[in-house]
Amino acid sequence: MERLPGFRDFYPEPLPTRDLWSSDARRHLFETWRRVAGRYGFREYDGPPLEPLELFTTKSGSEIVGQLYNFKDKGDREVALRPEMTPTLARMAAAHERNYRKPIKWFAIPQLFRYERQQKGRLREHFQFNADIIGESSPEADAELIALLIDSLRALGLTAEDFRIRLSSREAWQHFYASAHADPTREYEFFQVVDKLERETPEHTDAKLRALGLSLERVQEVIAASRPTDHLQRILDNLAARGLTDFVALDYRVIRGLAYYTGTVFEAFDRKGEFRAIAGGGRYDNLIKLLSGGKSDMPALGFGMGDVVLTELLNKRGLLSETAVGPMVYCLIEEESWRPASLGLVQKLRDAGLACEFALTPMKSDKQFKRAQELGVRFTIRLEGAPDRVKLRDLKERRDETLEAGQAIEVIQRATR
Amino acid sequence: MERLPGFRDFYPEPLPTRDLWSSDARRHLFETWRRVAGRYGFREYDGPPLEPLELFTTKSGSEIVGQLYNFKDKGDREVALRPEMTPTLARMAAAHERNYRKPIKWFAIPQLFRYERQQKGRLREHFQFNADIIGESSPEADAELIALLIDSLRALGLTAEDFRIRLSSREAWQHFYASAHADPTREYEFFQVVDKLERETPEHTDAKLRALGLSLERVQEVIAASRPTDHLQRILDNLAARGLTDFVALDYRVIRGLAYYTGTVFEAFDRKGEFRAIAGGGRYDNLIKLLSGGKSDMPALGFGMGDVVLTELLNKRGLLSETAVGPMVYCLIEEESWRPASLGLVQKLRDAGLACEFALTPMKSDKQFKRAQELGVRFTIRLEGAPDRVKLRDLKERRDETLEAGQAIEVIQRATR
Repeated sequence: MERLPGFRDFYPEPLPTRDLWSSDARRHLFETWRRVAGRYGFREYDGPPLEPLELFTTKSGSEIVGQLYNFKDKGDREVALRPEMTPTLARMAAAHERNYRKPIKWFAIPQLFRYERQQKGRLREHFQFNADIIGESSPEADAELIALLIDSLRALGLTAEDFRIRLSSREAWQHFYASAHADPTREYEFFQVVDKLERETPEHTDAKLRALGLSLERVQEVIAASRPTDHLQRILDNLAARGLTDFVALDYRVIRGLAYYTGTVFEAFDRKGEFRAIAGGGRYDNLIKLLSGGKSDMPALGFGMGDVVLTELLNKRGLLSETAVGPMVYCLIEEESWRPASLGLVQKLRDAGLACEFALTPMKSDKQFKRAQELGVRFTIRLEGAPDRVKLRDLKERRDETLEAGQAIEVIQRATR
Repeated sequence: MERLPGFRDFYPEPLPTRDLWSSDARRHLFETWRRVAGRYGFREYDGPPLEPLELFTTKSGSEIVGQLYNFKDKGDREVALRPEMTPTLARMAAAHERNYRKPIKWFAIPQLFRYERQQKGRLREHFQFNADIIGESSPEADAELIALLIDSLRALGLTAEDFRIRLSSREAWQHFYASAHADPTREYEFFQVVDKLERETPEHTDAKLRALGLSLERVQEVIAASRPTDHLQRILDNLAARGLTDFVALDYRVIRGLAYYTGTVFEAFDRKGEFRAIAGGGRYDNLIKLLSGGKSDMPALGFGMGDVVLTELLNKRGLLSETAVGPMVYCLIEEESWRPASLGLVQKLRDAGLACEFALTPMKSDKQFKRAQELGVRFTIRLEGAPDRVKLRDLKERRDETLEAGQAIEVIQRATR
């Protein structure tokens, strides 16, 4: 029986075939995201992977249903596997906003699901690092969030040579659109033309803009002028004070496809342009009110960073080659009569927090040693006749020592730090 | 909009209300499970939460469908949210068994789903620590797995006073059943009577046993005799060599409800008997062959430990009270003109791996300090006029120092270790 198309299995390294996904690399990503979010004072939350369908249609309209894993559950409820985290976050924050001090800085690492019929070979699930700041409208919040995005990528080994945050704002485009006296009801249509600017031919774009009473030329003037709005200038100043200027560039071509963004928008790109966007986000100051049915009304902004493009990029840069965490010590059992005492030694090592492997069943000494090498352990240990005496071999420093078990543990712990 | 019944939101601590679930406690569980599994040389894997329905009906029969979240996807595939991990593990291990050295020691922490119509108020999802050893039939593998189970619970702060592993074997009951010359086709029916022994009245049990040509008296003789099978004796000896005897007791009342267990079975219980089983598992030597359609044939055993009962138990014992990980340092901004330089300091602290918070927008000094105290930080830090001079306050030791930023970072890092 095969797994479903568009879904992934995660295997421990070394991977049997190159098309498989590594559980070690995934853990490395998740741990890095969690660690950096913690440095920034972001707290973790999570919600159910299955939610009422209405939560997603309220936000995105009924068109989204075509892209969802949705069904009727046995209690006749219309439900869907979450395609994104923001509606769940809005629901959760609205339910308990009084109990958390503002601004709320939260993150999550949900698995998200989309059923897209046409895209053969494309994934139907991915994991996404989501970080949001709720209850603060000032650009200082935008800067804090963007700094977290930058540092999450830096912590994975990427540098200013590798990626850049393209910073933009819908405000600038709103202002332009209003000043051009175009039809106010077609503003979002206009945003979508800007969003597709880099993917469509100039002729096509120009025709669509002319239908709105605008032109490609005028749009390109706005992009070329690149004057930051006041809000964006304050974000840039804040990031400069943090020493992060090299990682950001104003770029009005970024406008984001989704309807609900209200101001600042941004995307993270690899600078060589080999991959799709690594992350994207922005302000959605009206969404919590909409999703909470008016129960709550807080400005908010957030970003999402998926694991798929990021893993491709990190693999390409050779930054995921050493994520496997194998055992540190291998306990050799030279004679079967020593097995009970060796089991006691293994337990002692593990109790001390050390990752320790050994042959579960009788195996020749040289095969055990070979196995230890395959596992890439730093140390082998074995009983040395007298109770509590062990021979510790440091495979890296090529050194043998005969010690008491407790001393051996200290040596190994020192080497681990 | 409410979340679906039977699903949980996970909030950061302190929790607004007592009926909510803590994301901090969840992280503590997951990290502990991962850490201990690592010590034992178990490697992490994961599969899709959505699988072909057939994967589960092959193992458990079509009766299971009534308890699943199953539906037809947009490609007309019959699919289901996974109710357990073993079928996925069997599929994955069978697909690449040649590439991994036996015994395969793998673990996962999947979220699992069950739709049970009748059980109001009961959860429809939970997380489960799954650990399995594949490709080794000797009792040494059983002991290694049970030791991992014991140490996972010990690492959470539980002691031999708190829990016990009740060890049993279907072999003993198979032997008894065969020697009683009962109807061989009704053996599994007999196992189910034994499984329900503690939950039903003696009269009811006796009646059901008599229908099989047996009696409660004879069954209770087997339980009272408590002679371990050879296989169980070797497990007990192995655990004794590890010093884990206090955590295990032979108990033939344990037989496990599922059809596919073949030999050793065990459950972890709290010793006061206040909770349902904390964990359960056993040998399933024929299952991989069945689930891989004969492609692979390996002995295997595993256990599952859910997060719900365990969290209840740990809460009751006061072992989840300090799982929240807040920031370590709060950067005070005494004058707004110092904000840019303070942002630089915050960045320096975070770059050094320290969790640092500060007021995103202007706030009075005393309010900032109060906020720092609420967050439970160990240190406050603020610029001290001259560039790179900071005042570091240790709130625990009640000590102030004026230092260079780099020195302050070292002081904080030393305190963190």
